[in-house]
This record gives sequence, C-alpha cells and structure tokens, in this order.
Amino acid sequence: MNIDRNQIAEHNKRLEHTQQRRFAQLAEDMPNIDGVVQKLVSFQVAIPSWALGTGGTRFGRFSGGGEPGNLEEKIADIGLLHALNQSSGAISLHIPWDIPKDYAAIRTLAEQHGLAFDAMNSNTFQDQQGQTHSYKFGSMQHVDRAVRKQAIDHNIEVIKHGIELGSKSLTVWLADGSSFPGQLNFRRAFQNTLESLQEVYAALPADWKIFVEYKAFEPNFYSTTVGDWGQSLLYASKLGDKAYTLVDLGHHLPNANIEQIVALLLMEGKLGGFHFNDSKYGDDDLTTGSIKPYQLFLIFSELIEGMDNRGMEHAKDLGWMIDASHNLKDPLEDLLQSVEAILIAYAQALLIDRNALNEAQATNDVARAQEVLQQAFRTDVRPLVAEARLRAGAALNPVQLYRELDVRGRLVKERGEKTVATGL
Amino acid sequence: MNIDRNQIAEHNKRLEHTQQRRFAQLAEDMPNIDGVVQKLVSFQVAIPSWALGTGGTRFGRFSGGGEPGNLEEKIADIGLLHALNQSSGAISLHIPWDIPKDYAAIRTLAEQHGLAFDAMNSNTFQDQQGQTHSYKFGSMQHVDRAVRKQAIDHNIEVIKHGIELGSKSLTVWLADGSSFPGQLNFRRAFQNTLESLQEVYAALPADWKIFVEYKAFEPNFYSTTVGDWGQSLLYASKLGDKAYTLVDLGHHLPNANIEQIVALLLMEGKLGGFHFNDSKYGDDDLTTGSIKPYQLFLIFSELIEGMDNRGMEHAKDLGWMIDASHNLKDPLEDLLQSVEAILIAYAQALLIDRNALNEAQATNDVARAQEVLQQAFRTDVRPLVAEARLRAGAALNPVQLYRELDVRGRLVKERGEKTVATGL
Amino acid sequence: MNIDRNQIAEHNKRLEHTQQRRFAQLAEDMPNIDGVVQKLVSFQVAIPSWALGTGGTRFGRFSGGGEPGNLEEKIADIGLLHALNQSSGAISLHIPWDIPKDYAAIRTLAEQHGLAFDAMNSNTFQDQQGQTHSYKFGSMQHVDRAVRKQAIDHNIEVIKHGIELGSKSLTVWLADGSSFPGQLNFRRAFQNTLESLQEVYAALPADWKIFVEYKAFEPNFYSTTVGDWGQSLLYASKLGDKAYTLVDLGHHLPNANIEQIVALLLMEGKLGGFHFNDSKYGDDDLTTGSIKPYQLFLIFSELIEGMDNRGMEHAKDLGWMIDASHNLKDPLEDLLQSVEAILIAYAQALLIDRNALNEAQATNDVARAQEVLQQAFRTDVRPLVAEARLRAGAALNPVQLYRELDVRGRLVKERGEKTVATGL
Amino acid sequence: MNIDRNQIAEHNKRLEHTQQRRFAQLAEDMPNIDGVVQKLVSFQVAIPSWALGTGGTRFGRFSGGGEPGNLEEKIADIGLLHALNQSSGAISLHIPWDIPKDYAAIRTLAEQHGLAFDAMNSNTFQDQQGQTHSYKFGSMQHVDRAVRKQAIDHNIEVIKHGIELGSKSLTVWLADGSSFPGQLNFRRAFQNTLESLQEVYAALPADWKIFVEYKAFEPNFYSTTVGDWGQSLLYASKLGDKAYTLVDLGHHLPNANIEQIVALLLMEGKLGGFHFNDSKYGDDDLTTGSIKPYQLFLIFSELIEGMDNRGMEHAKDLGWMIDASHNLKDPLEDLLQSVEAILIAYAQALLIDRNALNEAQATNDVARAQEVLQQAFRTDVRPLVAEARLRAGAALNPVQLYRELDVRGRLVKERGEKTVATGL
Repeated sequence: MNIDRNQIAEHNKRLEHTQQRRFAQLAEDMPNIDGVVQKLVSFQVAIPSWALGTGGTRFGRFSGGGEPGNLEEKIADIGLLHALNQSSGAISLHIPWDIPKDYAAIRTLAEQHGLAFDAMNSNTFQDQQGQTHSYKFGSMQHVDRAVRKQAIDHNIEVIKHGIELGSKSLTVWLADGSSFPGQLNFRRAFQNTLESLQEVYAALPADWKIFVEYKAFEPNFYSTTVGDWGQSLLYASKLGDKAYTLVDLGHHLPNANIEQIVALLLMEGKLGGFHFNDSKYGDDDLTTGSIKPYQLFLIFSELIEGMDNRGMEHAKDLGWMIDASHNLKDPLEDLLQSVEAILIAYAQALLIDRNALNEAQATNDVARAQEVLQQAFRTDVRPLVAEARLRAGAALNPVQLYRELDVRGRLVKERGEKTVATGL
Repeated sequence: MNIDRNQIAEHNKRLEHTQQRRFAQLAEDMPNIDGVVQKLVSFQVAIPSWALGTGGTRFGRFSGGGEPGNLEEKIADIGLLHALNQSSGAISLHIPWDIPKDYAAIRTLAEQHGLAFDAMNSNTFQDQQGQTHSYKFGSMQHVDRAVRKQAIDHNIEVIKHGIELGSKSLTVWLADGSSFPGQLNFRRAFQNTLESLQEVYAALPADWKIFVEYKAFEPNFYSTTVGDWGQSLLYASKLGDKAYTLVDLGHHLPNANIEQIVALLLMEGKLGGFHFNDSKYGDDDLTTGSIKPYQLFLIFSELIEGMDNRGMEHAKDLGWMIDASHNLKDPLEDLLQSVEAILIAYAQALLIDRNALNEAQATNDVARAQEVLQQAFRTDVRPLVAEARLRAGAALNPVQLYRELDVRGRLVKERGEKTVATGL
Repeated sequence: MNIDRNQIAEHNKRLEHTQQRRFAQLAEDMPNIDGVVQKLVSFQVAIPSWALGTGGTRFGRFSGGGEPGNLEEKIADIGLLHALNQSSGAISLHIPWDIPKDYAAIRTLAEQHGLAFDAMNSNTFQDQQGQTHSYKFGSMQHVDRAVRKQAIDHNIEVIKHGIELGSKSLTVWLADGSSFPGQLNFRRAFQNTLESLQEVYAALPADWKIFVEYKAFEPNFYSTTVGDWGQSLLYASKLGDKAYTLVDLGHHLPNANIEQIVALLLMEGKLGGFHFNDSKYGDDDLTTGSIKPYQLFLIFSELIEGMDNRGMEHAKDLGWMIDASHNLKDPLEDLLQSVEAILIAYAQALLIDRNALNEAQATNDVARAQEVLQQAFRTDVRPLVAEARLRAGAALNPVQLYRELDVRGRLVKERGEKTVATGL
Repeated sequence: MNIDRNQIAEHNKRLEHTQQRRFAQLAEDMPNIDGVVQKLVSFQVAIPSWALGTGGTRFGRFSGGGEPGNLEEKIADIGLLHALNQSSGAISLHIPWDIPKDYAAIRTLAEQHGLAFDAMNSNTFQDQQGQTHSYKFGSMQHVDRAVRKQAIDHNIEVIKHGIELGSKSLTVWLADGSSFPGQLNFRRAFQNTLESLQEVYAALPADWKIFVEYKAFEPNFYSTTVGDWGQSLLYASKLGDKAYTLVDLGHHLPNANIEQIVALLLMEGKLGGFHFNDSKYGDDDLTTGSIKPYQLFLIFSELIEGMDNRGMEHAKDLGWMIDASHNLKDPLEDLLQSVEAILIAYAQALLIDRNALNEAQATNDVARAQEVLQQAFRTDVRPLVAEARLRAGAALNPVQLYRELDVRGRLVKERGEKTVATGL
C-alpha cells in the first residue's frame, strides 16, 4: 500500500487550525522559531530493516501480521513511515538478512520512497545456514584465524553491497566476548579483534566510515570484547581517521552517564553515530523516550553543544539511527513514536538558552543552570515538531493518521497474518 | 527577614500579563482546568528541618552562609518558602536536633508562618553527646536489650514532643544493618527490630501513624534491617493498623520500579508517606525532578490512581515530604525547585485522560497507553502551577523573586557567614 | 548409553589413593567429619529437563550434538549425571515440552535411573502451536478472563501430569508484566494474577506445594507482576499454607542481598525452594558458582541456620533445583560443575563453627564473625564432597570420568549431530 | 608499644607443628611450592595513613580508642602491622593530614619499622582551614583559574614532601565532577583538568610516576571528571610516559568487569597501581575480600598474566595499596584481614596452571578453563601464606597474636579512649 499526498493533506486540514493556534502561541515567546523548525525539517533518522517486524526475547516471540517478508517490503514499510513523518528518510540494512538481488532496482525503489541508504550492518553474532565456521566462540576475536577470516570476509562483502547501494558507512557490532571466567585471554581477544578490524578497515573506501559499536553485556555474560566506550575508542584510535565509536543507548552498565560519554567522544573527534532506543534494565530495546525522556534530552543537549563547537552539521555529520526491537507494539507505530520522541528531544535541546547556560556554568550557579535546562525541557515543543512536519509535507499526527488509514490492516491483507520478518 | 504581601503582589504584577496569556492558552484545551488548579492549591509538601542547611558527604561539607542555627530560624526559613510558593505549609522536625524549649512559643511561631507540624523524625543513627549506649552496631536491632531500650525510649520521647506540637505521625528511619557477612543474624535482627517497634507502637496516640521507612543500603553496606518495601510491609503488617510504609525515592536498588511499589502498597492500604528527592546512583539526595522527572510523573500517576481508587484525599491522606541534602545549591532555592518539580509532576498526572488509559489497558493497546501518558507529560503545565500560586497568594516565580529580594544575602547579614545548620 | 558400576569403580580405584590421603588430612582437623559427609550423601539437586540442551539468547543459539530429543532421552541424560555423581537424583519436568505418553513407562524408566520427579513446571510465557489465546500480553494477569482461564487450565493439567508421575509440587514462573509505562494497571494485574493462582491452588492435592517464583525483569522490561520476594510473599500469604516463595538466584536487581531474603523467608515459614545458577548482569543463567561462589556459600549459611532453627530437614524440606541455560559448554558437563559447586558451598557452610559465630554476633565482634565464616569458606572441602560420592557409589571426579568415557561422543553417535532439545 | 621478635617466636612455636603438617600436605601436590612462597614473601602492600582510624559515613562516625593522633603514631601503627605480617612494609601518606615536621626524623622512624614511603596522596576534595579558594565546585576542573592554580600548587607541594621522604609516586584522586545536569560543560571540565594535570606532571621528578585515579560517582552524583578507566587512560596518554591509571576496586558502576579493565590497561602499558578494598553497592570501602573474594582472585589472575607477559616484576612494578575506611572493626585488625585476603588471592592466582589454561582457551574448552581456575581458587592456600610469614619472621596468625597481645588495649592506654585519627 501507499499513502498519497491527498490523504495527508486531508488529515492535516482537519488538524491545522489547532496546530496554527498552538504554534502561534509558542512563537510569541520564541524569536528564532523558524530556525528551529528548519533544523527539525532537515533532521532524518535512519530506520533499521530489522525493526519492522515484531522482535522476540529468548523466552519467545509473538509475531504480528503483515510483517515485511523481503527487502522490497521493508523499503515499502519505511516509505510509509517517511510519507507520514518525512523524518525517516533512510534505511539501515543488515546483511545477510537484506542482500539485494538487483541493486539498481532496489536503489530505484528506495529513491521512489525518498530513502537513502544509511550505515550497513554486518552479522557475525549468528550462524547462517551453510556457514563454514561457527561464531559460537566469537568472530573477530576468535582463537582460530579461519573463523576470524570468515568474519572479515563477511564484513568486506557487506561493504561491497553498501557501495552498490550508495551507503557510506559500516556499523560493526560484535557479540564477541565470554560468558565464563577463564574462557578468554582478554588481551589476545582484543588484539585478534583489532587485527580483524584492521583488515576490514583496509577494505573501506576513502569516503566511508566504520562505526565500532560497544556493548557492556549480552549475549555474552561475563565479558564483551568491545565492552565500553573506552575500549571502542581504543580500537577506533588504533584503526585511523575513518573509524569512529557508535553509541547505542541501551549498551551501558546501570547508571552510566551517557551524555558525558557523548561529550567526550565529540571532544576527541571520535563520535560516529547513535543507536536510539530506551531501556530500564539492560539492552531492553524499548521505544525511544518511553522510559527516560530527560536523559534523551540531556544527550541531545551535549550533541548540539559538542557538534556546534566542532562546526559539525547536525543533520549530516553523525549517523542517526534507531535500534530497537518491538515486542508488544505494532512495529510501525512504535517507530513513529520513537522518531517523534527523538525530534521532541532535539527540539527541546535546540531551545536551550546557551548563553544563559554558559554564564551559569561560568559562575557555578548550579540552580540557574538547572532552570535553564528545565525551561527548555518543560516547554511543550510538539507544535514545533508538528510544524516541521507540516512544512515538509508530512502528517501533523502520524500515529493518528496511521490508524485512520488502517495501515496495519491493509498490510495484513496484502501480506498475510502469519508473516515473520527477519530480525531478533 | 520576612517577605510581605506587597513584595509578592508587585512581583506578580510584572509577570501577570504573560501568565494570563499562557494560562488562557492552556485552558482552551482543558475543560476542567479549575478543578486541577484547586487540587494544586491544596497540595502541601512538608519541608524537613535538616534540609535548610548545606549538606555534606563523607568527603566533606561546604557550608554556605546564613544557615539557620536553631529551630526558630528553621521555621522562619520554611516560612519564607511558604510565603513564596504557598505549597510548603508544613515542617518535619528531627529530634534531637530540633527539641523545642517552649512548645507554645514554637507553635505560635509556626502558626504565624502558616505552618503545620508534619511527621516527627527520630535519630538512632548517630551517637549524641552524653548518650549512654552507642548505636555503632544498630539501635532497634541491637543484640543488647539496653541499647534497644534506649532507642525505644528516644522514639517515645519524640512522640511526646510531637504531641505537644500537634504532629500526628512518627517517621522511623533505621540505619540498622550490617557491613560484613556474618555480622548479624538476620532473623534475630528482624525480630529485635520488630519488638522494639512494637514498644514504640504501643506508645502511639490513637490518632497517630507510624511510618516505617526502608532503605537498601548506606550507611550499612552489606545488609539493612529494614531494607526494602517487602521488609517494611512485614513490619507494618505485624505492627497494626496505625503502621505504614514510607517510600523514599532514593532508597532502592538500581533500576527498581518504584511506581509499581507505590501501587502495591496503596492496594494493601499500607502506603503512609513519601520522601521526595532524586538520584542517579544511590541515596544521592538531589533536587526532586532533577534527574528522572518522568519517573516522578509515573509515580504521581500511580498515586492518583491508587488514592482515587481507595477514596483517599490527595492533600491529606498521605504524608508528603521532601528529604534531600543540598550540597551545592543554596538550600532554599533547591527546596523551591523541588516543590516546583513535585507540583509539575502532580499537575501532569492530574491531566492524564484516565478513561482513555483504562480503555487502552483493557484492549492491550500499548502504543495508545503510552500516547495517553505522554500527552499529559509533554504538556507544559507550568502556567497551571503558577496559576495555583497566584490564587493562593504566592509568587508567580518563587526562585526569581527569591533572587530579586536577595533573600540569601539578607539572611547572611542577619545570621552571619559561618553558620552551620544541623543535618548531614 | 549407560555408565556401569565397573566403569565407576575402575575410575575410583585410580584416584582413591590420593583421595584417601587428602580426606585423612582434612579429618585431622575435623571431629565430626562423618556427619558432614553423610549430609552430603543425602543431598540431591533436581535437574530441569530444559537444561540438557544448549540454550540460546535472543541473538542466536549454537546447538551442540547428541542432545536429547524426547522425555526418555532426557531421563537417560539425568541418569548419566546421577550415575556419575549420585547427587542428581531428581528431574524437574516442563509442560508442554515433556508430556509423557505413558506414565507407567516413564515412572519405571526414572526408577531404573534412581530418579524422583521433582517440581513440575508450567509454561505460560510462550504460545504453543494451536493454542487458542496468546500470552503476548500476559497469562494469569491478562485483562481477558478467557486468557487467564486458559493459563489456569494449563496449570491444572500440569498438576495432573505431576500426580501421575509422583511429583509433589508445582512451580509457577510467570513472565507476566509490562514493557511500557501505562501498559498495565499494576493493581488489577496483581489481583487478576492472585485470582488465577487461587484457582490453581484450589486444584492442588493436599500433599502438594505450589512455588511462586519471582523475577525482577525479562522478558518484560518495565514491570513484572511477580517481581520480587515481597510480591511473591504477598501472593503466597494470600494463597495459603501450601503456597511458598521460590528463589532463583538470577532473578534480582543488581546488588540485592539474596542471603538476607532467604533468611527472612525461612523466618516467615514461606521459603519453598531454590533455583541455582549464577550471573553477573541479569538472569544470565550461568553455571552455579562460576561467578560469585562466596555469595553461594553465604546463602547456604543462611539456609542451614534458618532450616536448623525451624527443625527442617536439609535434604527434604526445600526444593533444590538447578535452573540454568547452557550456551557454550556441553550441558552435561555444565550440570556436573553446577552440582559440584552446590555441594562445595553446602559442605563449607556445614563447617561453619556456629557457636563461635553466635558468640561473635552476640558481642558485635565483626572481625571475628568474618574469620569464622572465612575459616569455613577457605577450607578446601573437595575431599569431603568426593568422599560423599565414594560412599554413595559415584565417581570421584565426575567431569573427568565423563570425558574419559567420551559420553558426549557416544551420545552424538546415538542421537546424531543435529538434535536440538526443547528449551530456551 | 612494640611487638618484639620473642613474642612472635613464642606465638609461632605454639602453632608451628600444625603449620608444618598442613604445609607438608600442600607440598605433596605442588612441585614448585618454594617459588610461590618466595613470591609471597616479597609481596608488600602499602597501608594508607587514613585507614588507621575508624572511618565514618555522612550519617556519623563511631570512633574507637587508641587511634593515632599524628604521623609518628601512624607509622608506629603500620610498624605493628608489619611486625605481625611482614607484608605491610610501606606507608602511603596523605597531605595535608600527614605533613612531616622533620623529614629526617620521620624517615628514620619509618626505617626503624622497616617501612618505605609509597605513593603520596593529595587532597583537593575538602577545604582546609585558612584555604584561599574553596573546592566546592571542583579543583583541577574549576572554571576559575585561581582555584585550579591552588590545586596545582598543592599537588606540587605534595611531590616535594614525597621527595624528601623517598616516595616515587603521586596519586591524584579528584572528587571533581557535578551533581546536577547543566552544572558542568563536560569538555571544558576535561580540558581544565588535563591542563592542571599537565602542570603537575611538569613538576614530577624523572623517576616518579603519577597515578590518575578514576571513580564513577561520589561525592559528586551526576558526573565525575575522571569517571572511568577510559577517561583516566585518556588523561594518562595525553600526559606522557610517567602517567598511569590507578584502579580502585570500589570505583566502578554496578557489575563492571574489573579484571578485564586490568588486563587492557596492562596491555596498553598504562596500569600504574591498585587500591584494594571490597564493596557491594558503591565505594563501600570494606575489608578486601570480605564480599567478592572470587573477583579478587580473578583480578590477580589477570595481573599475573599481564605482568608476566610484559616482563614486569610482581613485587615492584605496580603500586599495591589498600584504600579502605573501617567503620565497625578495629582498623588494625581490619588491615590485617585485608592483607591476608590479598595474599591469599595472590597465592591462588600463582597456582593457576597457565599451560592448561592457555590450552583450554586455545581450544575453546570453556568447562576446562573453569576447572583450571577453580582448581586454584578452591585450594586452601593459607598454609602457603603462613609459611611465607614464618620465613619472613612474621606471626603465623597475625590477628590471633594481635588479640593475644591485646594491642588495642595497650594503644588505648597509651593514647587514650577519645583519640580521633584524621581521615574520612
């Protein structure tokens, strides 16, 4: 199915009056409101191909209907999201789940939906049918050179697929680690991993980036070989200028101060990208902003401060991706909610009075610094975000229109009740 | 110093125009806005006497100036807060730090400031000068009956002070526990504590409540004898109808779902009161709402739902107290910020569309349930809270007026630069 | 395959000399060594049927070979373990994975291996083929009475299977909970769950127990409806005398003091049983004793103290079960290691000088209390545990004999390389 | 008071027979036992001057009697420890608490007790009497250059004291950080801190090291400016070859894998030293080995593996210090227990069969790797540690002799009941 412009226009017509009133009210107190709206229009969040189906836990998976069964349907799904919010204009593919049969056709299809190809994702955390070596004991860290070689080759193959599609980056998330004391020699595991990454790095085109993602635990439960930002930064520094750290919000130990990590990585010129999601206990992969919206705002505050300080462009110079796994909600509704939460946090952070904050910091006026941040966070910026959508040709209320059009019902009719998308 | 009505009126006059506009804008979308404002007006948060001075950590204490040196000055400080926000109309005393010399005079002074006496707090976690027995190894749990007796007697004495002042409740927070495996027999520690509490309970007037506060760790670092809500509920159930659990937001293990605890305690009819603060790592005692404002909102959502379900009155049927320790901010500014954050969370929770939420829950419409909650949370309710203040005769912007009047500067002049209030 | 007595005798003959020497050395310092050995001989740990195959995480599963494909093979596997260590004389079944076709035949088979049927486990955390209602949004907590009824009926059916096999208890672990704020009304979820449990309880034979297992998180990531020991105890208390709390070591928030929970549940007469495993981050389901052996010892110390205080029999009055999920090791080797670690912790705890500990506690001699505990923990009790095996007709070194006999190789030959056992 | 050789000899005579028997039994299974004993003899752990008095929490301090009131008495206390165990042959001073009045006299006194001067510790986390600028808002990170300068000067002064005493290293632990979002610009805080450290580094003698200690939280509760090993490594790398990371066991987020951090820092040539203690919740500063002895063993396993790999000398090439704060125990007994636990973990780690472990790792034999580690950990190495003491002229059972000689009672008589040592 497709959502056409008339459907959106009609939806907007019904809501436009209220939106105009609310936006005007906000504008009264904001001199530079159009600049903020313009930044929101430009901001795009990539959707991972594996988030379009219902995810599972090790205890089970409760699939929904109408899930995309192939790459074309995944692109169509993200096309629906992008038509609704004009903020999801990129797709992040996962190999081998999404190997295109016909690159040109896939590129054309993506273009028709207005979608770019964001970071490519390799998979060395599962064994695929017919694979020569098993990743049971790791991939790039493996004690056996043949297994490492297989993982390296796979990543190089992923780069090749990406080149054909116009992607410019590779995200390497390694499940490598150990579940028991004694299983690994930590140093050798690090060095094997580094050497493997170096071989992949050597195959990277000049205009590509490689993102080294870290994770504290799961699926290994004693150690992870790229376990925290310190380790990731070590790898990225040793690899070279094209290597960066990727921060996934759910990949930290309890109580970690992620916003500080973000600030330091930006300071070092080594922050590459972001995986958005939310969590309470571990890598829970919940809807972005559903558990800790203030933390999300604080992270955006650091991102803006740090990027502006380095003269980076918000919309282009970092990789913005969602990485979630939707167990209970309709995945498309969930993604609409995640993108909305990201835009809200971004808008709030754009509203921070930086001069006032700097002044408060310079005078150790802690109460004032809090007031400045909370002034931005407590502002209801939804009319701003909606305005950005209106100007971009998207729906004022994407979730509402999604339901009005019964998108899921129609996808089920098209694709069936029992489809199961690839993913976790 | 005092803040008189004219100063407040003048301040409000300057801000009133903007406030009226913003309130009117909010009112356009809210049919029942006056009911909400009225609930906000009624809501009072008790201020603990020990939060009026700069707190410290075990690594040091950086006192500010003008701190209250006696009970009269503490009452005066809370009087200032209450004059500014009309939401801090109660004081929670701590014995022996706040033993009144003249009950009638203290009652009169409090009345002059419009303050009631909230829960009384005993102290068996420190040794006082001249004390017969040490609490080094606990108080109510102690293996030595004489030490337990001393702790019991102290609590009964605290009740007596409270009776004289018109308080109606006793909060018992015990530091009792152990720092090393083997130090305690857990069962005997529990039973000693229970028997001690029973003796205190027996001395409780008919119209009093006793709050059994729990805490996961600190100052003991292996076990705590009232360590979690399950233990507190066991004590409260064995004690009787006048015994309740008290929830302090900072007293949990990492990632605990406090809002669920609140809901279950209300279900059991055993939630007695609240200690508000915020934290990232442990009992950090930071400004309420400064770290996890969404959690605070979710807790208020459960409080309202549960209290309404039991036919409880929001403003009266639970003990609402702040318990924080202000290391870096001016304590009075900090308390104004905390009360503001509490009222904002309360207001947001009052705006939740309960019918829509019930319906979403009844149909497992998880995405919709989230929309309903976030619709309330994302609303900028500050004009509502300010309106409540306006109607109650308080300042539209308490922190701003506090600074305009240079309250701290005047307190320093009155009391000196080197005063150190009792507290942590 | 079977392991016959001759194979064990031959293995023991080779190791016996060293064992005798080491045992004699230990005996020199221990007056009551035979009593300890006798307790070790009596102690039996039930093996769950789902731990016999290689487990997985949500990121993948790396199966090994020779895994049992049906109930008969599972019994055979546990028979092998029991032959090797004579401490694994019970099996804990999981329905519907282990529905017997012929009760009498299964009972006979189990008897041949010397195995009893321990607690039966129901499964309402997954949807089975052809199931009428889905457990996607919970089972016993579900808003729809029909779903709850299905879950109740399933549990009653599990009891019936158990009766036929001679089991005497039902373990109910519920994945019920929520992953997003607002999804559940906590109170109604609790009450629905309680009513469902009451219906199951009503179907419980007079000599059965029901174990209500709690878990802090996973597979739900916001709340769990039986989330901690406090909640489990509430259910168990409301259900009645046959209801108990079951403690799984991996089901707690970070840093929880599990040994204190054990002591308090014993105090209340409500500890029903144990699920042994180990973990660093969450419900990691690692080999018992592989991460925190001292914690395991402290738990056994509380178990012994509390059971002795209530006059309970160690070997009979609690349910002792392993609950692990073996991702990387041969499951049978892993189970042998887990049972060994449990017996070691039990033996160490039996060696604690209780009089000295009581005296140290009575005098707040914290350093001495630690010395007493560590004196037991630091003792190398492996000769004691081995002696118990020798006396019971088991192998002195079960893992070593398992490898010498190439048990896994022979199972692979019998059953094939690609078998996948039911489980997680 | 002093402990003379005769007292020790007499004590040893009584215990020697049993010790000889146990040592001989151990020796039967260990070919290289003398090499291990020799390493234990050489291993020395520095005692911090602030651990000799009873520590406190922010809730209170329960001092014991006979605490050292000046530097001379602190040296005497450590002299007692060293006489008892011959493993505490160094003292770590804290400035300004321990400023010597007469360097030569202090050096002579230390020599008389056989003590060396280990790392010097600066203090910029507290304000001292008469200090020009306050550290309330940080020291080396401070927005005001004058405050930073004061902190730098203080550290340089500490180096000067150290030079006079023969110390060779400076430990810098900074409490710098923030307690509220917005308080700090993380990047500027980092850069200020780096520049401050660079000025201190410039004043470091050629043969000195500077240890940059990290800590996740406390006394700041939102961010710490040297917050984790990644940050510390960044500073140390930017500073130069004389700068190293110092690991304090209690300074991590929950569940951190400290042994992996140790291995990676050794790999990078940047591990400088260790602060031993133990903890369950945060920086609990409990007796080493009292909570997680297996973790301590695993850390020593990595230390040995990594140091051997780099050709480092165990006894000399890292700084080994205790950093604890003894609230409940007699501080001297506590330190004896801590040193004992460290030696036990070291001895166990020395017993690991490295060839077998390497082989297990090379073949992904996870169960075997665990067996190899646990074989060492489960061995009762106390006779080894005692033998090392015997050969070094120390007491076979230091805690027992400490009590037999009533050391504390005699110190109380000498120094009085009400002394309070400097410290936390």
